[in-house]
Amino acid sequence: MTIPVREMSEWESRELLHHGNVGHLACVHDHRPYVVPVHYAFEAKQLYVFSLTGQKIDWMRSNPNACLQVEASGEHHRWNSVVVQGRYEELPDAPEWHNKRLHAWSLLQKRSFWWEPGSSKPGAGSDERDNPIFFRISIDEISGRELAANAGIHDVTILQE
Amino acid sequence: MTIPVREMSEWESRELLHHGNVGHLACVHDHRPYVVPVHYAFEAKQLYVFSLTGQKIDWMRSNPNACLQVEASGEHHRWNSVVVQGRYEELPDAPEWHNKRLHAWSLLQKRSFWWEPGSSKPGAGSDERDNPIFFRISIDEISGRELAANAGIHDVTILQE
Repeated sequence: MTIPVREMSEWESRELLHHGNVGHLACVHDHRPYVVPVHYAFEAKQLYVFSLTGQKIDWMRSNPNACLQVEASGEHHRWNSVVVQGRYEELPDAPEWHNKRLHAWSLLQKRSFWWEPGSSKPGAGSDERDNPIFFRISIDEISGRELAANAGIHDVTILQE
Repeated sequence: MTIPVREMSEWESRELLHHGNVGHLACVHDHRPYVVPVHYAFEAKQLYVFSLTGQKIDWMRSNPNACLQVEASGEHHRWNSVVVQGRYEELPDAPEWHNKRLHAWSLLQKRSFWWEPGSSKPGAGSDERDNPIFFRISIDEISGRELAANAGIHDVTILQE
């Protein structure tokens, strides 16, 4: 089996993050992973997210290590996937974060649905849901890979019956 | 802000897993998360995956705790997201797994692209990529949520400028 895989440059990976707006965010508690889709706004070394409260916020407050993955399909049946490793930083609704909050809001406002399915807790008190959390993932590392998806199953022989 | 969120029944969550074929799989090493897209085949209490070797296989061999999330958009701008918590179990190419391997292969064969972007290591030896790993996630817990995505940004007021 030959599957052509190419490592993307940092510039290409950043372009993909810039053009995307939905990713999958993973976090950890007690050696267990959890992953949910999120909408994000990318800028420089940060990914900004507004989120409803819930498990991932609880977990990242306790362990800030986070991983966000974003994929995109390209031309000629190519697939690109970028993985970001970073740290959760909560940005409270305080004067020092006001401009960042407005900026991220303006970026996210361009999307129809900036909030994610599966994030808010069913049955949670309405007051809890009234206060979405604003946070960022401070990027430590970006890596990206491109894969020629037309190298399909017919190129593969795993099982010889 | 009011975002209608409904907890899905186990039956509904299983239906979503059954009709889907792409999810995002998260794993953990040293308190750090990692997440990649995968193609899976769902059956009863198991999710079957063929995977190229790489970081996630290394990590799950060391810590079998895994989380797979699958989303689907439904009618009337609704979004559904199912999260599975489970354990990694590698199924070696040995006689006792032959039938399971064939069965999972037959399920995955219906998909054009059963393997995931971002999974194989660029520059890895070709012999390494010649031997995809067959594993399953043994499901411990399934939860699902439905969210009315047409409760869009205009229903939300976070910032009072």
